[in-house]
Amino acid sequence: MISIIEYSKQNKYSSFLKRKVFENDVLEKTVSETLKNVKQDGNKAVQKYTATFDGYNSSAFLVTTAEFTEAENQISNTLKQAIQNAYDNIYKFHLSQQNNELPVLVQPGVKCWRKSIPIQKVGFYIPGGTAPLFSTVLMLAIPAGIAGCVEKIICTPCNSAGKINPTILYTAKLCGIEKIFKVGGAQAIAAMAYGTETIPRVYKILGPGNQYVTCAKQLVQKEGVAIDIPAGPSEVAILADQSANPAFVAADMLSQAEHGIDSQAVLVTNSKSMIESVQQELEKQLALLPRKDIVYKALQNSCMVLVTDLTEGIELLNEYAPEHLILSVVDSHQYADKVINAGSVFLGNYSPESAGDYASGTNHTLPTNAFAKAYSGVSLDSFIKKITFQEITPQGLRHLSTSITEMAEAEGLQAHANAVKIRL
Amino acid sequence: MISIIEYSKQNKYSSFLKRKVFENDVLEKTVSETLKNVKQDGNKAVQKYTATFDGYNSSAFLVTTAEFTEAENQISNTLKQAIQNAYDNIYKFHLSQQNNELPVLVQPGVKCWRKSIPIQKVGFYIPGGTAPLFSTVLMLAIPAGIAGCVEKIICTPCNSAGKINPTILYTAKLCGIEKIFKVGGAQAIAAMAYGTETIPRVYKILGPGNQYVTCAKQLVQKEGVAIDIPAGPSEVAILADQSANPAFVAADMLSQAEHGIDSQAVLVTNSKSMIESVQQELEKQLALLPRKDIVYKALQNSCMVLVTDLTEGIELLNEYAPEHLILSVVDSHQYADKVINAGSVFLGNYSPESAGDYASGTNHTLPTNAFAKAYSGVSLDSFIKKITFQEITPQGLRHLSTSITEMAEAEGLQAHANAVKIRL
Repeated sequence: MISIIEYSKQNKYSSFLKRKVFENDVLEKTVSETLKNVKQDGNKAVQKYTATFDGYNSSAFLVTTAEFTEAENQISNTLKQAIQNAYDNIYKFHLSQQNNELPVLVQPGVKCWRKSIPIQKVGFYIPGGTAPLFSTVLMLAIPAGIAGCVEKIICTPCNSAGKINPTILYTAKLCGIEKIFKVGGAQAIAAMAYGTETIPRVYKILGPGNQYVTCAKQLVQKEGVAIDIPAGPSEVAILADQSANPAFVAADMLSQAEHGIDSQAVLVTNSKSMIESVQQELEKQLALLPRKDIVYKALQNSCMVLVTDLTEGIELLNEYAPEHLILSVVDSHQYADKVINAGSVFLGNYSPESAGDYASGTNHTLPTNAFAKAYSGVSLDSFIKKITFQEITPQGLRHLSTSITEMAEAEGLQAHANAVKIRL
Repeated sequence: MISIIEYSKQNKYSSFLKRKVFENDVLEKTVSETLKNVKQDGNKAVQKYTATFDGYNSSAFLVTTAEFTEAENQISNTLKQAIQNAYDNIYKFHLSQQNNELPVLVQPGVKCWRKSIPIQKVGFYIPGGTAPLFSTVLMLAIPAGIAGCVEKIICTPCNSAGKINPTILYTAKLCGIEKIFKVGGAQAIAAMAYGTETIPRVYKILGPGNQYVTCAKQLVQKEGVAIDIPAGPSEVAILADQSANPAFVAADMLSQAEHGIDSQAVLVTNSKSMIESVQQELEKQLALLPRKDIVYKALQNSCMVLVTDLTEGIELLNEYAPEHLILSVVDSHQYADKVINAGSVFLGNYSPESAGDYASGTNHTLPTNAFAKAYSGVSLDSFIKKITFQEITPQGLRHLSTSITEMAEAEGLQAHANAVKIRL
């Protein structure tokens, strides 16, 4: 079911740590066509695609006040309280990410500073259907609200009756989002990128989706619409020593595996008996899961790796650059200090990935597929841009002038030098 | 030569503020082919392309110690001092962008924090030829050094004798970069994205380039290699009232226009006489410029806009989202506070764009083409990624548990709930 690798050489890591590669030439052609049609025909094209793929044939894309109220009535108080607790924690952690920088007097008469400004218009894609990811609404809308984004909209697919899962509507309203459009797939990305008669154009699109959504985000990014991070299958890696609890380890691997058949769970340990115990636990716990077909397939992409020591383990994990990294080891802080490439790190035996997925306060939109080598997860930073300012006095410009004119002339740019000379 | 627009309606802004659009379907095919060949054949393909496009047919891509020394001997002391002054200012301003966040106790027993980690491997593309942009070396290598990026490499095209402009070599060495490869164009981007026998693979590629380089960066980004910002033609906008000096305004417009024939300079003013005076100055100053053919063509894409008042002016400019924005108005701070979309802002009559291009301390790699609506320029942030961490105690997990399990079950993810239940 799951591969076991013992004492591999470093140059063999990549053979068992590789992710699935998706070829998407055909996909790209289909998605390009969708983008082109929505750009050209606006609402008309959106309606046509929505009728075809979601079975909802109407031009009424916008969720109404009555629908928000109806959704609110369908949510239990327990779930409302659960969402509120998660909201509060996510809000608190993302609020702490605010950062005010002071102006810098670079040299006499030369003052420079940066200012954070919210991206004015952002759009969120929220998948619907069997996995209505209302938790992702929290993860995107809360930091966008803290940042101060003026226009925040959601596109999410509805069913053939035009209904959206009530948890999504309830959570969106809680986060202050009132414009939700019943549009899914590549057509939703196109609508937010170009705007239609009904759906406003936004400057940045965030949120997960299937391969059509992912491809559409990549293509509109090429036209200058910003996106959150490149997407790939989700994954967890666990570094465990003898002190880890095999039942907890197995539960964490299974929670990752239930996301989809291309998910990956990797255990790295210096204990051979841990591998055996985790394997037994996997079999035991798997049998009881409702999504066991998905989990079973995901475990076939997964592996358990026996290493000589934990230092080798952490090196291997930095090379793998997992989206989620759980450190179930005695001195978890020591190993946390050595993490270079990961999306989010969970320390100790009582910090399961699902805490971060929902409620601890960290963001769950994270770099997969080794993108953690260059990308961060979503945070408050994702919703702001920083503009630099400078104010120079006549005296300050005099001090800078030789530097500017010498360099400009060495680059062959005489007019750049002139703009200084004419002022002196 | 330059268009003049008087008292336009707001809904007409886009007609005169539009940028040139480039169709690149053919280009993309050519560049894809280059990427594929370099990925497959490594050095061999790089050498073939370098021989074809730069006339240098050798496998010796790496700049030698002797070449660094030779370059250093060719640079005058005045230029060295100019570069050092710019270096110091850029270093000082980017150092101020460091930011240490403290852990947050989100709720009892639930601690979350973020840590900034340098992107380990970064590659810079530096254009060569007639405009050897050694100032861009400073703008990329200084923040990368402050961030602590471990591997920093440069690719830049050489001439047929295998020589690189000495200013580029000198500046790179000053910034601690010792691996410079004599490779340009799309083949350079491919080499840094995939690695070859000689050129190391990097996780993020930064720096400007021609349309082949830009297209190659877009394509490798789709494969998960991070890039700085999408590229477009450079531009400046100036907001001026009666207090502005027409000669300064004209000089700033010309300094922008000399970048290339697709550059754009936009003057927005509430003073009709200012437009007349600037026009006279443009003609006068243009006649003396060495690159006047380029400047003349760039001015044909440019415009001067007469507005009723400066508030309308700043609204128009926020819609335009210029890369550079100069505020030559009496109360420049008042209008700086109203800027929402711009790359970098220059306050008052003595803060020319060329100060920021070279030596004031701000970065000159900025979002063009209205990308400032969603993107920041390059800064220290461009070279780090932020990893989130969380540490939860058994007590803390108990407090979070209902929130996690309720939400997980409402999303249909039973194994996520189990990972918490098994720990309680």
